Amino acid sequence: MSDIHELTRQLQKSNGSKIVMLVADGLGGLPLEPGGKTELETAKTPNLDKLAARSSLGLSTPVLPGITPGSGPGHLGLFGYDPLKYQIGRGVLEALGIDFDLGPNDVAIRGNFCTLDAAGNITDRRAGRIDSDRAAPLCEKLNKIKVPGVEVFVRHVKEYRLVIVLRGEGLGGNVDDTDPQKTGVAPLDPVGKDAASKKTAEAASSFLKQAREILKNDAPANFLTLRGIDKKPTIPTFQEVYGTKAGAIAVYPMYRGLARLVAMDILDAGQTLADQCTRLEAAWNDYDFFFMHFKYTDKCGEDGDFNKKAKMIEDLDAVIPRITALKPDVLIVTGDHSTPAKMQAHSWHPVPTLLASDLARFDKADKFGEAACRTGSLGNFEAKHLMLLALAHAGRLEKYGA
Amino acid sequence: MSDIHELTRQLQKSNGSKIVMLVADGLGGLPLEPGGKTELETAKTPNLDKLAARSSLGLSTPVLPGITPGSGPGHLGLFGYDPLKYQIGRGVLEALGIDFDLGPNDVAIRGNFCTLDAAGNITDRRAGRIDSDRAAPLCEKLNKIKVPGVEVFVRHVKEYRLVIVLRGEGLGGNVDDTDPQKTGVAPLDPVGKDAASKKTAEAASSFLKQAREILKNDAPANFLTLRGIDKKPTIPTFQEVYGTKAGAIAVYPMYRGLARLVAMDILDAGQTLADQCTRLEAAWNDYDFFFMHFKYTDKCGEDGDFNKKAKMIEDLDAVIPRITALKPDVLIVTGDHSTPAKMQAHSWHPVPTLLASDLARFDKADKFGEAACRTGSLGNFEAKHLMLLALAHAGRLEKYGA
Repeated sequence: MSDIHELTRQLQKSNGSKIVMLVADGLGGLPLEPGGKTELETAKTPNLDKLAARSSLGLSTPVLPGITPGSGPGHLGLFGYDPLKYQIGRGVLEALGIDFDLGPNDVAIRGNFCTLDAAGNITDRRAGRIDSDRAAPLCEKLNKIKVPGVEVFVRHVKEYRLVIVLRGEGLGGNVDDTDPQKTGVAPLDPVGKDAASKKTAEAASSFLKQAREILKNDAPANFLTLRGIDKKPTIPTFQEVYGTKAGAIAVYPMYRGLARLVAMDILDAGQTLADQCTRLEAAWNDYDFFFMHFKYTDKCGEDGDFNKKAKMIEDLDAVIPRITALKPDVLIVTGDHSTPAKMQAHSWHPVPTLLASDLARFDKADKFGEAACRTGSLGNFEAKHLMLLALAHAGRLEKYGA
Repeated sequence: MSDIHELTRQLQKSNGSKIVMLVADGLGGLPLEPGGKTELETAKTPNLDKLAARSSLGLSTPVLPGITPGSGPGHLGLFGYDPLKYQIGRGVLEALGIDFDLGPNDVAIRGNFCTLDAAGNITDRRAGRIDSDRAAPLCEKLNKIKVPGVEVFVRHVKEYRLVIVLRGEGLGGNVDDTDPQKTGVAPLDPVGKDAASKKTAEAASSFLKQAREILKNDAPANFLTLRGIDKKPTIPTFQEVYGTKAGAIAVYPMYRGLARLVAMDILDAGQTLADQCTRLEAAWNDYDFFFMHFKYTDKCGEDGDFNKKAKMIEDLDAVIPRITALKPDVLIVTGDHSTPAKMQAHSWHPVPTLLASDLARFDKADKFGEAACRTGSLGNFEAKHLMLLALAHAGRLEKYGA
């Protein structure tokens, strides 16, 4: 019984309770001056503080101590899936990021437009970073390519970046990048590492041959390289492992995509926190579990804007009463990782987390923040165990063993 | 990706940062009177306390809760190697303890002189605990033994204890002890458990046959038994798994040996903490990571001398300014296990640990000690994860996943 989900499959039960997991992306932070206050500690958060007083608190380790997660591993952990077991390829994540609904027969590929010289060698691996207005029509041209036995989808992402999806029976996801990672040489041919992936490589070669012809007059974007070629991982569904019907309310496509990976229903989230709350209220009776995602804490952290990150936390705080008014049996506020404005990047620091429930031991903190969470009842816990705590406090797990 | 080092191989990067891991052997303790202060809490440690104020604190579990480690597992854990995966045989540890540089073709054996009666049965398993002056020349005689196809090294350790190393291609390490663990019976013959180890057993038999003849007039040390027969474990190098060049500054041979197991460079440590600091200063530009080992905390703990252990901690405290003056990006102070003077032995109690770095969340403790570490940001962590934290705070790990 080494797998968490072997346990939850066995112990799950339904009781009509409701769980809300509110994920403030990159919530955890650092003080600007060593020893000062973090973004969360700086923000005025009367509603979160009131909630913290009747919560168990703790610090969540997304992957392992010291390991900085990307958004994929960060969210898989929160959903209770071991992020070291389930790995998401770069192409898959890129497809999720544009809301492309990947199926089991799809191989997702990240494409980069590049520039070739007359000899066929790469002179610019990002095609002069051409803008989206120029790149999008090229993607539409490439989207018309036909490969026998395989459906081809080409979607523009941003500037020189695109997604290619090859759909067909028996296509493998184990194909090397064609980007040689340097200029002055030709792009590599796609090489499959097993029988199924050789089939993928053949389809990719056919695609590239046609693409070369189609783009020949479109310098600087007169060719493209393929990277992060992969199928979406085989992940058991949220419903199956936990017995809860889950809805995702996320404004950004990437996070809808991550929720879709575990087969949550994707609800229309609108554009703002207010829209998200309205959707939560409207869908309240239809789901057992709600994943609400708030992006801007991470974004301001990445931008290095400490004050704006604190302000975003205050915006989040302002909608808390709309959520608590619904009287969820369990309300969790956490993040998928830390994004200290000081570092302008994701970090490994454990993430402040509160779990509000009438069955929680209240830590009686007077402020929701890293320092209070440090001494909370949940301790330093692994993110992948948070779902167990959520289900337990919601009365959704039977006793283990007699 | 269940192995830590699969991750660190993938994520490691170099940036010129410096990490110092200062290991006070057996640092953790217990109060003499239940509820009182530990050795560390009793010691006056103004420098460590100042450092603690700008550190993340935590308690390190060397192997598993409740498991008391020897020096081998204790240090492997600190170096980031799972001590339940990599096991060090008793003979290997004994060889490391006398600075014997074991190679990949070496089988290390711990020998005990013993006394045989006229019938060839053991009457004393430790040869009357003969002193070193008598035992050392016997080892020199045994060192002249020739075994065809195998190089033989015999080294005296202390009193009735010695180390035998058999060096040769294809020798296995899976050979039973010849010590029958009781008197009144003959020593056992060496028995190899697989083809390679049968070859070792043959060489050992040849060695023992000659030894019996050589020692026949040296009662009470007229023979020897063989124990802990093993090869050194195959351990990936520190440099390979972390991408850091590491130097070990340890006065005691055992700890140099443990550092050598993971292929750290062994630097001349002199005899005192001051010597060690001088070496650290001299080698500062040549390494990314320094392992500094201080033995006397453990020694006084084993001796049951509470006050002297506290005094040793004060001696350690006194050199902290020489280390911080070098401005390491990360300075860790920890132990490989606890050695409470009250128990006069290693123990399972988790080990007080501080990690000082500008990127650490400061726990603002006013005293470095077990109580402060209990509520620190690092929580109760597994020793094998400490290297991940060290590398992360030093900026030496890339993000995991996109």
